[in-house]
Amino acid sequence: MSEQGSQYRYDILQKRWVIIASERGKRPQDFAVPREEVETVFCPFCPGHEEKTPPEIAAIRDPGGRTNGPGWRVRVVPNKFPALRVEGEPEREAEGLYDRMNGIGAHEVVIESPDHRSRMCDREVDDIALTLRMYRDRLTDLMRDQRLKYILIFKNSGSAAGASLSHPHSQIIATTVTPRTVALELNSCREHHHIKERCLICDIIKQELGSRERLVTIDDRYVAFCPYAARFPFELFIAPRFHQHDYSKASDHDLRGLAAVLRDVLGRYREALDDPPYNFILHTSPNANVRPRRAHYWDTIEFDFHWHMELFPRLTRVAGFEWGTGFYINPTSPEDAARYLRSL
Amino acid sequence: MSEQGSQYRYDILQKRWVIIASERGKRPQDFAVPREEVETVFCPFCPGHEEKTPPEIAAIRDPGGRTNGPGWRVRVVPNKFPALRVEGEPEREAEGLYDRMNGIGAHEVVIESPDHRSRMCDREVDDIALTLRMYRDRLTDLMRDQRLKYILIFKNSGSAAGASLSHPHSQIIATTVTPRTVALELNSCREHHHIKERCLICDIIKQELGSRERLVTIDDRYVAFCPYAARFPFELFIAPRFHQHDYSKASDHDLRGLAAVLRDVLGRYREALDDPPYNFILHTSPNANVRPRRAHYWDTIEFDFHWHMELFPRLTRVAGFEWGTGFYINPTSPEDAARYLRSL
Repeated sequence: MSEQGSQYRYDILQKRWVIIASERGKRPQDFAVPREEVETVFCPFCPGHEEKTPPEIAAIRDPGGRTNGPGWRVRVVPNKFPALRVEGEPEREAEGLYDRMNGIGAHEVVIESPDHRSRMCDREVDDIALTLRMYRDRLTDLMRDQRLKYILIFKNSGSAAGASLSHPHSQIIATTVTPRTVALELNSCREHHHIKERCLICDIIKQELGSRERLVTIDDRYVAFCPYAARFPFELFIAPRFHQHDYSKASDHDLRGLAAVLRDVLGRYREALDDPPYNFILHTSPNANVRPRRAHYWDTIEFDFHWHMELFPRLTRVAGFEWGTGFYINPTSPEDAARYLRSL
Repeated sequence: MSEQGSQYRYDILQKRWVIIASERGKRPQDFAVPREEVETVFCPFCPGHEEKTPPEIAAIRDPGGRTNGPGWRVRVVPNKFPALRVEGEPEREAEGLYDRMNGIGAHEVVIESPDHRSRMCDREVDDIALTLRMYRDRLTDLMRDQRLKYILIFKNSGSAAGASLSHPHSQIIATTVTPRTVALELNSCREHHHIKERCLICDIIKQELGSRERLVTIDDRYVAFCPYAARFPFELFIAPRFHQHDYSKASDHDLRGLAAVLRDVLGRYREALDDPPYNFILHTSPNANVRPRRAHYWDTIEFDFHWHMELFPRLTRVAGFEWGTGFYINPTSPEDAARYLRSL
């Protein structure tokens, strides 16, 4: 890269070109990582404050604990200021040229740990696995609602990454529409499978395992690599090495493996980048239980998608250019980023 | 809105659903607007420092001024740390499944004023018009390069909006690919025109002029309104009321009108939102001079697109959810935003 100047690279999933501006060649120490303060004001997510959240939806408790009392290890509650509500009907309607519908959906918070100060990268693998299994169980439950086309699971860690509370938590938003980004990936995968009868993401993983230059962490079930057309410095793509379209199908054993990979890469972020704010997002297949089902659309879903996580530290300010164009300039090549992260 | 709860609204140009979370109902005073310091360190864009930038590409000077000397009113220079370079050939090639090409393009900086502290909203309309005409002239010049499929013009104002220098400037990035966002809008417009033989953006403007509830500023040639499916609080869409696909076709007289509208809305931002950081992006049609031309693709371009500007203050932190999904939650409805902005 460095001898060749900048490159355009095509994101085969998102159908988007990215500029890898290697001449800017930013190394980890070149980024001014926002410092995060752990707030010490009253925290509604801490044990003993359970009445400050809406009543819990699910929890994993030590034996003897009572619902909405302390003693939990993971706890899921409705968002107190939800963007969407479960009650009602979508009531799709036109407004002249435009289209709208009621804000039906779900907005939940997964409180990942009773410990206000614990970060995911410091927790035990078994403890992280509890969070990942809770994601799966909430996904399974929400997928029963035939109105909900998509269930998004994501984490904002640090205020620069959008977290409004520092207590470790993630969020779930279930919507009556499939988000555009997921729809684009699904279409790319469908086109590939239609022609080749192979999964596009399986093919990508195979190529990454072959070249190894963007690999960061691998175990027998999961792989983490910097994607070829990474939008952000140190962006990572984490996926099962075996084909699985739907995260809700992951076994307890599998999710312990995923927890180990996630802990590994978050530890590398902490070391390389001085504990940066970060986001991760789970891209799983759309809900195959929705009604009305469109003919043919769902028939091939289990071949057409392959769930994965996107993980990125928040190092660069995203400017108007990116918002206005969906076009990214990444100052650190994914090969350089992977080399730094592997070296730790 | 407020009595109905949240809504999903469809962005007919971007083919994207947005959540208007009116229950969060944020008013201007509810946003913590980042404070911007005008830096007072050495500024390479100030008059007398012309040798600190690469040699100028274009300038508007008072009579008697010399190239690369002071006395200019607007000055365009190559970006000193360009993401793309003009020299060379794209050399498109595959890398296994992936696609890449050399980083060919242009990356220029438009220094809008010799006055380090001047903000666009404080400048005279005629002065802003000089900047807007320089955009047009650079666009016209860059469109002669048949390799450049798209020319992006945008402004990041304030460090929270991505500006690395506080001296007033905008940027131009010309690329050998059409950015996905523009391609999506173009496709939406093409589909609409193919069926209805009307311009989609002309239709949108007609509806907005009819309902008036999202209108902010209007003159005989231009209109500024909050778009129906606004992603961000106080987002604005500015467009000519007459059909014009290509910003390079705008006349000097037209651009004085646009300057007046832009000054008006930026003044409203300053008053309503305490001088916020902001971005604007110009979406003009792709370069119709590119070779090879694909059959039919360019034949209808002048009917299929309608140039416009997107303008938004940077009030909310964009979190993982938005990055991972292309899906936005806007806590201020465009009707409320337009009402606030109109009331000033």
